[in-house]
Amino acid sequence: MSLVAVGTVAFDNIETPSGRADRVVGGACTYISLAASYFIKPVRIVSVVGDDFPEEMLEYLKKRGVNLDGLQIREGEKSFFWAGKYHRDMNTRDTLDTQLNVLATFDPILPASYRETDFLMLGNLTPQVQIRVLQQLKRRPKLVVMDTMNFWMDTALADLLKVLKKVDVLTINDEEARQLSGEHSLVKAAKVIHKMGPKFLIIKKGEHGALLFHRGEVFFAPALPLAEVIDPTGAGDTFAGGFIGWLAKTNDISFPNMKRAIIYGSAMASFCVEKFSIERLRGLTPAMIEKRVEQFSALVHF
Amino acid sequence: MSLVAVGTVAFDNIETPSGRADRVVGGACTYISLAASYFIKPVRIVSVVGDDFPEEMLEYLKKRGVNLDGLQIREGEKSFFWAGKYHRDMNTRDTLDTQLNVLATFDPILPASYRETDFLMLGNLTPQVQIRVLQQLKRRPKLVVMDTMNFWMDTALADLLKVLKKVDVLTINDEEARQLSGEHSLVKAAKVIHKMGPKFLIIKKGEHGALLFHRGEVFFAPALPLAEVIDPTGAGDTFAGGFIGWLAKTNDISFPNMKRAIIYGSAMASFCVEKFSIERLRGLTPAMIEKRVEQFSALVHF
Repeated sequence: MSLVAVGTVAFDNIETPSGRADRVVGGACTYISLAASYFIKPVRIVSVVGDDFPEEMLEYLKKRGVNLDGLQIREGEKSFFWAGKYHRDMNTRDTLDTQLNVLATFDPILPASYRETDFLMLGNLTPQVQIRVLQQLKRRPKLVVMDTMNFWMDTALADLLKVLKKVDVLTINDEEARQLSGEHSLVKAAKVIHKMGPKFLIIKKGEHGALLFHRGEVFFAPALPLAEVIDPTGAGDTFAGGFIGWLAKTNDISFPNMKRAIIYGSAMASFCVEKFSIERLRGLTPAMIEKRVEQFSALVHF
Repeated sequence: MSLVAVGTVAFDNIETPSGRADRVVGGACTYISLAASYFIKPVRIVSVVGDDFPEEMLEYLKKRGVNLDGLQIREGEKSFFWAGKYHRDMNTRDTLDTQLNVLATFDPILPASYRETDFLMLGNLTPQVQIRVLQQLKRRPKLVVMDTMNFWMDTALADLLKVLKKVDVLTINDEEARQLSGEHSLVKAAKVIHKMGPKFLIIKKGEHGALLFHRGEVFFAPALPLAEVIDPTGAGDTFAGGFIGWLAKTNDISFPNMKRAIIYGSAMASFCVEKFSIERLRGLTPAMIEKRVEQFSALVHF
């Protein structure tokens, strides 16, 4: 099955209680495509960088089966940059700096080969860009998954609601689900959000796991209890990449297979947080991933 | 198997986002014994009330198979009273009033028939009282479960550490586990706490479920996503009561059966929060409990 992923490719400065990493590779699309590449190839990405983005990293992505035809490289411009500092609990963070750079004028152009895709992952970006991507598709994908955040609920709600109508699966965190729905109970929030478009709602709760809601049914996947979390950056995107990667690989969007996809996404995210940046996502093997999925099974089986 | 439960029997004033309830029956031992009574009878309780405690409630406890021989009723004195207000997220609360009354001078006296018990639940109380109970036992129980809280870590740590040495299972929440161990990671916290005595550590995370740690193994039980939480008071005690009740009923303290016990405890807690005070714990049936346990199974099965 074909898979297109849209999102940022960027540099991050990250400070966590475990240490810091400066000017490391980040961006939603980077994490999504790397995670998905363990399940399906190619992963076609739509993104933008400046000419400061390391050639070595682009080569590495290609080697992992990431198709860069939809990646714009802007000469004389700088890549998107984000700097953040995590609090002790790792569930909350402060943004210290955001430099949009190439992202400020980003207009996503889908190469012809991208315009008929079975699976589409809309990473967290301004809803306007997400709409522009949807407009270029020749046919509706089998499954559209969308990630977003509270910032767009605050500043671009009308556009966000437009995108939501065209989306099958929405992934947001618990506070965002509450904000979007106006309901405190996540069960009630899911009902409200289903009516906005997405038949499936995934609520990400960080170290507390993830919930999947679909037509009154609910599934829960825990996060793996880890001795040490080094850097949570990109965990949600890695989760999304593993999730849609598994679905694209198996070409099965039934509720039971969505559950498995969530476990694969959670497994990929559990690797992601063990090192800074994308380091831990390099050099995984299918056996390592399967072993971790078995740990999730043991964790909840009774 | 025989079961003794120690803890408060009290009155509560409770305010939650869903409403308020004044001078309703509460207390750790009340919730523990009611929950356990659905699995094993009698539940022998050790506690104290004043002469203001309603005769009707004592009769109801007896009817449910709760043995009151160890309940002191002090003439001319008042029962323990607590008033609290829950925040919107229901995970945090402010104590508005605490009147120790009979609890101030409580010296637990175990009737002769209580002194050889297979299972012992030490509900949240001053560690001194918990020690006094342990001192009166003729032989070591098969399993001692202890609940405690941050207040005793702040004010009576030396005594608390003494009790911990004699305990098999400790139940505390995630912040308390961090405080007691000095470790932020719950995986690391469990290792530190195991060395203090308890071979099993249950970390309660409220709406985020519960973790069981034992010799490097870990089990996770989610909380059931509920459309409405009316009153979280007593949920942790109800969990403990269901947990030890199931263990006493099955007389099996293996790790696999501890997992099942945690699910039964979680199921009982999921009922508890659906109404104020102990209301929802009245009139449950084994079939209702089994049905809820099946919901937990469906929630995590993939």
